[in-house]
Order: sequence, then structure tokens, then C-alpha cells
Amino acid sequence: MTTTAAAYAAPSAKAPLERTTIPRRVVGEHDVLIDIKYAGICHSDIHASTDGWGEGIYPMVPGHEIAGVVTGTGPGVTRYRVGDRVGVGVFVDSCRTCDNCAQGLEQYCLKGTTSTYNARDKNGEPTYGGYSTHIVVDENYVVRIPDALSLDVAAPLLCAGVTLYSPLRHWNAGPGKKVAVVGLGGLGHLGVKIAHALGAEVTVLSQSLRKQADGLRLGADHYYATSDPNTFEQLAGSFDLVVSTVSAPLDLDAYLGLLRTDGALVNVGIPEEPVSLDLFSLVSGRKTLAGSSLGGIAETQEMLDFCAEHGFGAEIELIRADQINEAYERVLASDVRYRFVIDTATI
Amino acid sequence: MTTTAAAYAAPSAKAPLERTTIPRRVVGEHDVLIDIKYAGICHSDIHASTDGWGEGIYPMVPGHEIAGVVTGTGPGVTRYRVGDRVGVGVFVDSCRTCDNCAQGLEQYCLKGTTSTYNARDKNGEPTYGGYSTHIVVDENYVVRIPDALSLDVAAPLLCAGVTLYSPLRHWNAGPGKKVAVVGLGGLGHLGVKIAHALGAEVTVLSQSLRKQADGLRLGADHYYATSDPNTFEQLAGSFDLVVSTVSAPLDLDAYLGLLRTDGALVNVGIPEEPVSLDLFSLVSGRKTLAGSSLGGIAETQEMLDFCAEHGFGAEIELIRADQINEAYERVLASDVRYRFVIDTATI
Repeated sequence: MTTTAAAYAAPSAKAPLERTTIPRRVVGEHDVLIDIKYAGICHSDIHASTDGWGEGIYPMVPGHEIAGVVTGTGPGVTRYRVGDRVGVGVFVDSCRTCDNCAQGLEQYCLKGTTSTYNARDKNGEPTYGGYSTHIVVDENYVVRIPDALSLDVAAPLLCAGVTLYSPLRHWNAGPGKKVAVVGLGGLGHLGVKIAHALGAEVTVLSQSLRKQADGLRLGADHYYATSDPNTFEQLAGSFDLVVSTVSAPLDLDAYLGLLRTDGALVNVGIPEEPVSLDLFSLVSGRKTLAGSSLGGIAETQEMLDFCAEHGFGAEIELIRADQINEAYERVLASDVRYRFVIDTATI
Repeated sequence: MTTTAAAYAAPSAKAPLERTTIPRRVVGEHDVLIDIKYAGICHSDIHASTDGWGEGIYPMVPGHEIAGVVTGTGPGVTRYRVGDRVGVGVFVDSCRTCDNCAQGLEQYCLKGTTSTYNARDKNGEPTYGGYSTHIVVDENYVVRIPDALSLDVAAPLLCAGVTLYSPLRHWNAGPGKKVAVVGLGGLGHLGVKIAHALGAEVTVLSQSLRKQADGLRLGADHYYATSDPNTFEQLAGSFDLVVSTVSAPLDLDAYLGLLRTDGALVNVGIPEEPVSLDLFSLVSGRKTLAGSSLGGIAETQEMLDFCAEHGFGAEIELIRADQINEAYERVLASDVRYRFVIDTATI
């Protein structure tokens, strides 16, 4: 059984998004019905809806940075009530039984998570994302947005926020630690805010100094241009942790040279092509090259509470639904400070 | 002021080693004079003496797996006495003041260690290694060989042993952990022994099953051939830690696929060429690719005590000094089980 919702969808690969109507499942035993208020535009939305990974299910409704209000609950729901302010991130289900799910690492579910869009749920029905008026999600994959956070600036935290929070916590960013964030975009600007709030000394490594004033305002202590070769010489052996948010192929050996002994270079951006690496860059100081993806449900809640406590959300540009295609062009041109958020009342 | 010692040296790059006489410094305030009894042949000896790294100082006396007996001490020496059984590893000095030296991570000295051979000491004099009758070393860079260990099987522990012990300890090999050792050579066979003694479940990943019986005898619980593509399928997601001892370029993505979530692939062997890597292999399970080099002085002592307590040294083939060149050929052909050790009485 299904109901319907208004949405913006890509009707086919590489086609512009347009307004349409999609089915939503009826509210089940453990489901909450969410009136979506805001949906962030993540770079991966563009990638997926243009079939960048070659596995598009069309029509595709992107959007996995969802903030809204509960307007209905199934009979078995215990965590949420009508009127609660809630968020939904990158996945809406997982196996719930594997070692990783059991540890709250649902993002690494060994059977694979069910993505919020462009996936098939346990019944084989396609999932549709947040560029829509409402969504039905199992309460276990819903998080609470604290009152201190506006829903619009909270939306991007559901993907971009936790993508940075998780590695910063896992690799112990905090007082006394020197942390560099590579790239000051949708991901990177939240990395700066979170690392700063965690008490680390934060450096932005950006291609140019174009956004330097912003970076410092957001909480960075230092700002360097990676296009300047002196940067790599000057900062050699400086950092405990470097988090790369860029998906362009990095010169890994150069970035590993920025780490102290036992330091870690953690990638949350993924280049499409394989990268080259001299293993000596790792051996010479017991260095770590690692990757990190999203965060678990409990960790996502922890991140939202942390951001609320420290009084910040994402930096956003609020747009109407009919501006989505234009916004995609601007994201591809890196022309956004720092996240587009769709006001879903305009769908 | 110097004295002399008999040694086997490479007179020039790519030339066979031959018997010669080298200078040794006189015993200084904090020095011990060591009568070398045994010296292991490390693969890097061959690499260095054939000028593989392009920085040879000739004549070159290789050897950084040294076991012997103290025959003299400087007036300021407090740790060792004449008659003590001692070892010397890959470096004979470091800056002693940097953050890493202060933490006992001398192997990562920020000013660079002084290698046991093919380096210049603080006075600019060349260092000469263990293929020699005696050596003079600052007591702070000498370790004690426990009575329970024969000197011949202890010698290879000074490089190969600590090269495996350090990462196995750092990445928490122990009870309940599944550890794979890639390559069953001079390094790998000690990795198996140490990981087994630490209580881990140990798997050998070797090109073929040729040494399977040996691997199981040395302490491996499982043995797989990496030339069999089924191995990678069968063992996918299995290991907490994979330590690669091979210097041939690995298919890193394939080996990262063997790790569990949060697992680490640690390289102690270094291919000469850069390797290729798909960062998705790291991101998909918060995996770590790392490197490790040797161990600190205190850790080297800890390793020797650990091996003595567990009653094992290296598996060796004892040779005469006039067999060194032939042994080099056999090392290059992987025809050694598992470490050649020179009886220096034959020099």
C-alpha cells in the first residue's frame, strides 16, 4: 500500500530534475511520517542523479540531508511523537544484526545499508529521497534535531556534518591536537567548525586563499594555499590529523609529509580514479592513510546534540525547488557557500 | 683515534664482498666494545651494498643484526659489563632530544638515526656494520640478549624481529585477533612466531603453498596461497590486522578487502615503485593502510625479552664469511629458510 508525495526527480540519467509525484509507503508499525521542511543538496546527489556510479533507478529523487517534523507515527513507535523535529540522513535501514550494526556502526553494515534514495528497500520498492514534501522512515533510522538548531541549517549536518564529525572523533581531534581540513566546501566548512568546537588547533588547506576570511571566521586558526609549494615545506611534519574532503586525486605523498609521527590522513572524499602512493611515505613515520564514511545512527544523534550545544549548523544558501538544476551547476563550479538547502514548501 | 677490525666489505657498488680491514673508533666514555659473534644477512644489506638506494659509502661493511659479547667498556658506561651478551640493530645513534627520541621512538628520530653501516656518525666518520669481528657502540644503542636465547638465532631479531614485533604490538595483535602475515621469509617467519606467541590467530598469505608445513610448524593456524584468486574471496573481511613483509608491489585494494571494519594493513616491506590504490577500499570500512619501521631501543629490548620468555629466535642457516656472496644470490632467489647468519669467527 502506498500514498503519494510531491517531489523533484531526475526522470532519467543526465536529465534535469523536474516536479513529479512519487509513491510513499503507508506508515507501518515502526514508521514515522515526516513532513520534510528542508533538504540539503549534497555533491553526491548530482553524481547519482547524473548516473555517475552507473546504477541509477529512475525516476530518482535525490536528497539525504533531510530535516522536518513528525506528522504521523505507527502504532509501535516509541521514540517520536507528532510535532517532533527530526532528521534523516544517508540511509534508512540496515540489517540490524551484523557485528557492525550491533555496535552502532550501521554505516558499515556488512549486508549493506538501504540508501535513502536510489536503492531498493526490503520489499524491493525503490527509495526516494528528501527533495520531496514528505517521507516515511523506520523510527530507528530517524534522529532528533535539538530545539537550539534551526531546521534549515541542521539539514546538511545529516550527511556532511556526520561525515566530518565521525572521523574527527574517531581520530581524537581535540585539545592539543593539530588538525588540518583539506578543502573548504560543504564538507570542509563543517570540518572546520566541528574540529574547532572539539578544541583542536585547526588549519585549512585550500587550493587558494580565496575563502581565507571565511575559513578564519568559521573557526580555523590558520589557512594555507596548497597551490603554493612552500606550504608543504613549511608545514612538513605538523599535523596529528589531516582530513581530506576533496574528491580530486590528491598527491598523497605530499599530504602524508604534513603528518607527524603516528599521524593520520583520513579521506572522506573519494577520487573516481585510483591514486598513486609511495609506501615509504607511511613507513617513515608509522603514518596512517585511512578512510571514513558517514557515522552510525547514535553517532549522528551525538553530532546533532554537539552542534546544538556549540550553537552552530551549516552555512547555507536557501533555494526554491525550481532552482535545483541551477544549484547543481553552481555546486559543480564550487560556487556555493557552503551548502544549498531546498525549502521544500516550494516544491 | 681508531683501531682496526677484520671485516667483509663491498669495495664498490655491485662488487662482490671481500675480506678487508676497517677502522673502528677507540672506546669512548659511553661506548662498549663488542666482540661480534654472529651477524644476520638482511635483504637490505644486499640492496645497500649493490647501491640500490644510490647512496653507497665504500668500502661498505653491511650487517645490522649483530649479536656478540662485551669485551670492553668506556669509563662512563653503566649498563653493561665485560662478558655481557648484547645485540646491536639497525641504528647506533640518534639525536636523543627530539619528541620521538624522548618517547623511545628513536627509529623515527626527527633528525634521522645514524645507521649501523653506510652512514656517517656525528664526527663525520663512516659507520661499518656487523660483518666484522668487532664494533664499538654507545651503550644507549645496545640491547641485552637474554641467556635463554642463543646468540646465533638472536641476531636476526635485532632487525627482522623488531620490525615485526613493533607493528604487531602497536596494532594490538593478541588473543581474539585475527592476524595475517603476508610473505613467509626472513621477516614473515618471525611475524608468524611473534603473532602466535602474542596469542593471535595467525594466517600466512604466501604466493604458493610451498612452505605451508613450515608455516604451520612456526605457529600459523592457517595458510593460503595468494596466487589462488579464491583466497581473496574466501578470506574477504576476515582480518583485524594484515602485516605485509613483501617488497614486491601488492594489489593493495585486494589486501584491504581482506580486512574487517576498522582493520589495518601495515607495510613493513617497501616496494621501490609507487603503488596504486582506490581510496574507496579504505572508506568502505574505515580501514587503515599504514607503515611501520623497526622499533625503538626499549622496544627492541622488550622484544628480545619476549622472544626469550617464549623460547624462540629466528630460524637460521649458519654460514661462513666466505659464503656471503653465495648467500646473497640465494636471498635474491628466496632460497633461504629463513635467515642467513654469518659465523664471524670465520672472517
